[in-house]
This record gives sequence, structure tokens and C-alpha cells, in this order.
Amino acid sequence: MTVSRRAVLTGGAVAGLGTAAAAGYLAAAPAATPSVAAVPVADFQDIGTGIIPFHGERQSGITDEPPAHGSFVALTLAKGTDRAALGRMMRLLTDDAVRLTRGEPALGDTDAELARHPARLTVTFGFGPGLYRAAGLESPVADLPVFSIDRLQDRWSGGDLVMQICADDALTVTHTQRMLIKDARPFGAVRWVQRGFRRSAGVHKAGFTQRNVFGQLDGTANPKDAEMAAAVWNADHSTQLVVRRVRTDIETWDLLSVGDKENSTGRRMESGAPLTGEAEHDEPDFERTDSTGLPVMPNFSHVTRAHVTDPKLKILRRPFNYDEAPDAQGRPDSGLVFASYQADIVRQYLPIQRRLAEKDLLNEWTTPIGSAVFAVPPGCAEGGWIGERVLA
Amino acid sequence: MTVSRRAVLTGGAVAGLGTAAAAGYLAAAPAATPSVAAVPVADFQDIGTGIIPFHGERQSGITDEPPAHGSFVALTLAKGTDRAALGRMMRLLTDDAVRLTRGEPALGDTDAELARHPARLTVTFGFGPGLYRAAGLESPVADLPVFSIDRLQDRWSGGDLVMQICADDALTVTHTQRMLIKDARPFGAVRWVQRGFRRSAGVHKAGFTQRNVFGQLDGTANPKDAEMAAAVWNADHSTQLVVRRVRTDIETWDLLSVGDKENSTGRRMESGAPLTGEAEHDEPDFERTDSTGLPVMPNFSHVTRAHVTDPKLKILRRPFNYDEAPDAQGRPDSGLVFASYQADIVRQYLPIQRRLAEKDLLNEWTTPIGSAVFAVPPGCAEGGWIGERVLA
Ligand code: HEM
Ligand code: HEM
Repeated sequence: MTVSRRAVLTGGAVAGLGTAAAAGYLAAAPAATPSVAAVPVADFQDIGTGIIPFHGERQSGITDEPPAHGSFVALTLAKGTDRAALGRMMRLLTDDAVRLTRGEPALGDTDAELARHPARLTVTFGFGPGLYRAAGLESPVADLPVFSIDRLQDRWSGGDLVMQICADDALTVTHTQRMLIKDARPFGAVRWVQRGFRRSAGVHKAGFTQRNVFGQLDGTANPKDAEMAAAVWNADHSTQLVVRRVRTDIETWDLLSVGDKENSTGRRMESGAPLTGEAEHDEPDFERTDSTGLPVMPNFSHVTRAHVTDPKLKILRRPFNYDEAPDAQGRPDSGLVFASYQADIVRQYLPIQRRLAEKDLLNEWTTPIGSAVFAVPPGCAEGGWIGERVLA
Repeated sequence: MTVSRRAVLTGGAVAGLGTAAAAGYLAAAPAATPSVAAVPVADFQDIGTGIIPFHGERQSGITDEPPAHGSFVALTLAKGTDRAALGRMMRLLTDDAVRLTRGEPALGDTDAELARHPARLTVTFGFGPGLYRAAGLESPVADLPVFSIDRLQDRWSGGDLVMQICADDALTVTHTQRMLIKDARPFGAVRWVQRGFRRSAGVHKAGFTQRNVFGQLDGTANPKDAEMAAAVWNADHSTQLVVRRVRTDIETWDLLSVGDKENSTGRRMESGAPLTGEAEHDEPDFERTDSTGLPVMPNFSHVTRAHVTDPKLKILRRPFNYDEAPDAQGRPDSGLVFASYQADIVRQYLPIQRRLAEKDLLNEWTTPIGSAVFAVPPGCAEGGWIGERVLA
């Protein structure tokens, strides 16, 4: 690299900028970073043919490692869609999902070629309070209360049915989404669609933590294995889903020093380690104080406020990044399609969200603009359909 | 699969639908398709660390195999941005691109961790007519005439500077886009951003043709190797770029039989072979007639109309699919961010576009809603910057 930083900056690059912008360049220039170490090729696999079984006691797309692309499609049921119609709808959508997740075209598929690369496709169905109302049943889930931090927009909130479509290929998600919407259409209208992404397959080894649009490692403290199962599944193999659209203000976040970012999170930007530890998966020590007697994990850091010890009270976060077109001033429209699965929203999600709404340094740079809750029925066996125990 | 088609359809699935929709299901059900054959794992590589060299006589991101994600960012220059300011802007943006394509943070990078996985990142700069005007220079490119098929929207058209950002990872594109926009901001406003996708790395072997949202194999007849170079590069290593946003009406396309789709394109849906051939890369035979004396390649098929024999008159198409949120009725907002590179838009692109605008069966299901042209200056050596021969 022969263009030195000085050459770029003094060669006129800064001359045209306001002083604030120029100061930003001068202050923020980080030391040269070594290229990332190559990940052994043997860890990677053909991703087009990957199949995650649809059938089973529990729905897929929940405790599976999330793939690169996710789309959440929420519907508002048409007036008069009763329990019998809901049963027909779920038979049809289940059949589509069964076929598409296998890499086969849906029955009504007129672009069969687009069905051939499932790329670990999953389709997960969730029922909102309105679906239970329509069916004349009591809903296991209720809309979240509005929190003081919320700036909710109708266009990102609510929904009677949600279909979470995830795959390692964007065209597969696009095609699956189109097939499902086409078949769902007689029963309702599209309320919102939220599409997001995580790292592509092949960027990280499986199990590696992804980064979000803030550059944070996101997912570190998620429960794993038996703990995950205990947090997510009810005895009947149902679970519950919260989808929150959380806008991130990257512009103001960008003005922070790395140290300030780390204090607001409670973890290191580079390693993801808690401020009391060395490695990403070290347990944070909330008792440790520094020489001035202050806790090393700041009282109001996101992790301190969100932390839960009892495995049964944890939630499984499964978010996707979003990045829509910036405005004319170049301000990004980015954030998280925050999704979490837990056996019981009231017992597990609500207390965490209440604590965060009350006090969380990260709130300064994040704004919830959408909110929806869904009960996620158990899976089904071959020949069955999702929701059969609720609606049949 | 024990849910038979009959069971799904007679088990009530159709009962709730209007007759048109029901007829659609019955007519369209394709035969079961065998699962796709596994592609050998050895063809796949770690995609996070892939680096495409930025420096060279020609810019990158043009004749390279396009990766999974692409974003086109067009700027409108601020009033008074003169040649000297443009030089400063391009020095700064070149420096960002040099670093980011290497997997290093940009100078002003405040989220350095997001720069670490270039995933074959390329940044390609193009200059619109307005940039030349601002610099007091004659523009090598001029806006396309408006064609009868065009329904152009301002929000997808024009632009003084374009930055084409491509990588195999969506977060890499997001971060790169943000860094570039941040540094470009003092010099102009964001006019439009168009983001699209192709198949993920690992779905196909390199060189395999992608499918578009219509399910067509898209890219088959692109020139290759020496032919590609002849079509794309001027002697001074510059080229020219057309970006057209073309909306596809998948809803009405879906009503066609496979045969009708093939006639409108001139190629088979499954294999991509011309209607006169067997395999994807067979040359179409425009002289061949069927038993009734009609040409087997229909006169007005897209391929018949678009076909060019002289290598110097070909164009290199490098499009990305887009799929934005559907409307409440579930109608998709999908299409192509159609991008083509050619040495001379007037000589190569215009005649093709004129023929297609005049007559092309595909026009029934496609609508150009955006249009922009850019001159793409040569590449630069280390220490140089893109546009130096134009602006210095
Ligand atoms: C844009 C919004 C958000 C961002 C950027 C964000 C970011 C983070 C980060 C960086 C961590 C630390 C690493 C990790 O364990 O993943 C974390 C942890 C966590 N977050 Fe968030 N988060 C957001 C919203 C939320 C919301 C809405 C909730 C739930 C109400 C939540 C609940 C949690 C929990 C439970 C943890 C783990 C705490 C622990 O036990 O260590 N987060 N988040
Ligand atoms: C949504 C819009 C479009 C769609 C869906 C589409 C689709 C296709 C398909 C399926 C093929 C055949 C396979 C291949 O060679 O790639 C093709 C070929 C081609 N298209 Fe398009 N196209 C679109 C727009 C355009 C536009 C705007 C142009 C230029 C003005 C263009 C120029 C060409 C050319 C030059 C060929 C190759 C013809 C040959 O020599 O065989 N297309 N297109």
C-alpha cells in the first residue's frame, strides 16, 4: 500500500470536508489489521443440497443454526376465515413447506426449477392472537405491552399468521416466499414482510458467532444443547416467538470510541469477551469491581441488564440483520429483525424486555419500531399438518 | 410423502378458494422432480477470505464472476462540486475501496471488525454525464432515449457517480456501502440504492449459469474470455455501464404454460437450451423451421431479438435479482437490477435495446422502471486513484 494515510489526507482529501468530518478521519483511523486467517476448506460443504427435515415432533427453523437469509411474512386473516378454513389453509401451506424444504416444487409451483436448491430451507409457522380469535379459541400469546422505548409502527407490528422462511440462498427464500404467499392469499392479506441476513455459509465455521450491523458479536450467550431445549420447548413441543424490528442508529454509534461501545454492551468489540474475561465464552463476573470500586461490568450495560442465570428463564435469540436503502443524506436504515424463541413469552421474554426498556445503555442507539408475538405449534408427522392439534 | 395431492386438494384445501385459483392448482401441478444431484464438495472454497485485487489496468467487478450480493449506489453531486473536489472525492473513495477489498478497515472505519471478511468484495466506480458536466468535461456517455416500453421512475434513474459493491456476503456489502457513503457524503446526496442477489456461493460450481426470478437460466449467451474482453474493454481500459431496473410481473408469468414461457424466451426453462438445440450452450439456429414452415426460434422471442453475432457488438450482462416486500395482495415486487458492461453503449447496447423495445415477447411480463448510464474509467496502480486520467 503506497498511498499513505498522510498522502490521502493531506493530498486534498480532507480539504473539502467540514472540520467535524475531518476530525473524524484523523481520530478514528485504526491500526492496520492483519488479514483474517484462512478457514480450512474442509469445514465447508455444498450448501445447495442441504436439507433440514420438515417433519418431526417440533418445527424446524428454531433450534437449527440459522442460515444466511431469513424472511418473516405476517398475514392478516380475511374476515370470516373460520376454524375450518384455517385448517384448509394450514394443510395447504404445510404441504408446500414439506415439498419445498425437500427441494421439490410445491403443488402449485409454476417455476419448478427454482425449487431445486433447498439450501437448508426451513419454513416455520406461528399463530398470532388474531388467529386464535378467528378460530374461536383462547390464545396462548398476547401482544406485548408498549414499552417507553417503543416507537412502534403498524406496518411492522402484529399479524395473525407468521411464516418464517430461512435458507442459505436468497433466491430459494424468494421462491418459497412467493409460493407460500400465493397459497395463503385466499385466506388473508400480507401485513408485513421483514427480510434479513446473517453471514453467508462459508464465511464462518458452524457454531461461530455472527456479527450484527453494529459490528458486535451477536448470539454469544444463547443457551445451547440441553439448556436451549429447556428454554425453548414446552412439554407438548410448542414454543413461542417474539419478532421485534429494532432500528439501529449506526450514525451516532459510529461516533463512539471502541471503549464506549464496549461499556454500553458489557463485552469487547473484537473478541466478544465480557469486560471481566478474556475469551468470548468466559462467564461475565458481575461482582468484580475495578480499583475505584465500580463494577467492571457496567450496571446498565446491555449484557448486565439482559443477563439471566436460570436456564428455564433464558430465551433463544435468532435475529437477522436488515439494511434497507439509506435516505438521501446517506443515513442507513439498518437494524435487527430481532427474533427470539422461548417456551413462555410472559415468563421468559417479558422480564428481560422490561429490564432493558427500563435501563440499557444500548437504548441510546436502538429503537424498537415493530413488535409481534406468535404461538408456535408443535411439528407434525408425515401426513399431518402444522396446527392440527390446535385447529382440527 | 403420504399426503397425496388428492388428499390435499380434496381434503378441503380447494373448497375455500375461488374457482380460478382452484383450477390453477389442478392444472399447474408438475410431476414430482428428483432431488438435485449433489455437487462435489471439493468445488467449494472458504468464501470469507477471498480477495479480488483492486489494483490493475482495469477496474474489478466487471469481468469477474459476479458473487451472491450486489449493491448499486448512485449519488447526485452537491452544487459546486468541481473538478478539484471530484479528485479529492475519488482519492478518498479509492483509498476506502483499496483497503476494504483487502479485508482491512477503511481509514474512517469505526466498525473495523466488519471489514475482516472481504468475501471477494469488489468496488467499481462509474461516472454519469452529470459528473463530467461538473468537471467541465465532455461526457463519453449520454442518457438513453426513453423507449415506448419504459415506465421510468426518477427514484431509480440517473446519477452522477455510481458505486457497484459486490461480495459473497451481505454484511460485507452493507458495511462497505456504509463506509463509502459516509466518505462520499460531503460531495453529494444518495440518489438511489439498488440491491440484489444471485445464487449463494456453494449452490453452484463456478461458471454455472444462475437463474433469475422468472426461473430462467440467465447469462448463458454472455461472451466469454477473449470475446468478453473484446466486448467490454476500450483500448484505454475504460468501459461503459448501463443499469436498468426491470420489474418482472411474476403473477402473470405464472399463468403461462412452460411451453409459452419457452417460446417467449427462445430457450428451454429447465436446460436453458435454445429451442433448436439440446444443451444450454448449443448455438441457436435461427434458420430452422418446423413442419408448418415457422421458425423454431420464434421471431419475437427475447433471444431472437437480442441476439448479436459480431463479438464486438455483444454486451456483458451482469444482473442481480431483486425481491422487495410484496404488497398487501401478495403481489411480488421483484425483477432484475439489469446491469451490462460494454465498450460503447451507443454502438453495442442501444441497437439491442431498440430491437427489444420494438418487439420482444418478454415485454409482456417485464417493465423498465429505472435507467442510468455511466462511463467506467480504467483501473489504477497502487498509489493511484480511479478517475485520475479523467480528473487530474
Ligand atoms: C438492536 C437491538 C439489539 C442489539 C444490537 C443487541 C446486541 C446484543 C449483544 C451484542 C449481546 C452480547 C452478545 C450475546 O450474548 O449475543 C446481547 C446479549 C443479549 N441480548 Fe441483546 N441486542 C439487542 C436487542 C435485544 C432485545 C430486544 C432483547 C430481548 C428483550 C435482547 C436480549 C439479550 C439477551 C438475553 C442477551 C444475553 C445476555 C447474557 O445472558 O449475557 N437483546 N445483545
Ligand atoms: C427482466 C428483464 C430481462 C430478462 C428476464 C431477461 C432474460 C433473458 C434470458 C432468459 C436470456 C437467455 C439466456 C441468456 O443468454 O442469458 C436472455 C438473453 C439475452 N438478453 Fe435478456 N433479459 C432481460 C432484459 C434484457 C435487457 C434489458 C437487455 C438489453 C437491452 C437484454 C439483452 C439480452 C441479450 C443480449 C441476450 C443474449 C441473446 C443471445 O445472443 O442469445 N436482456 N435474457
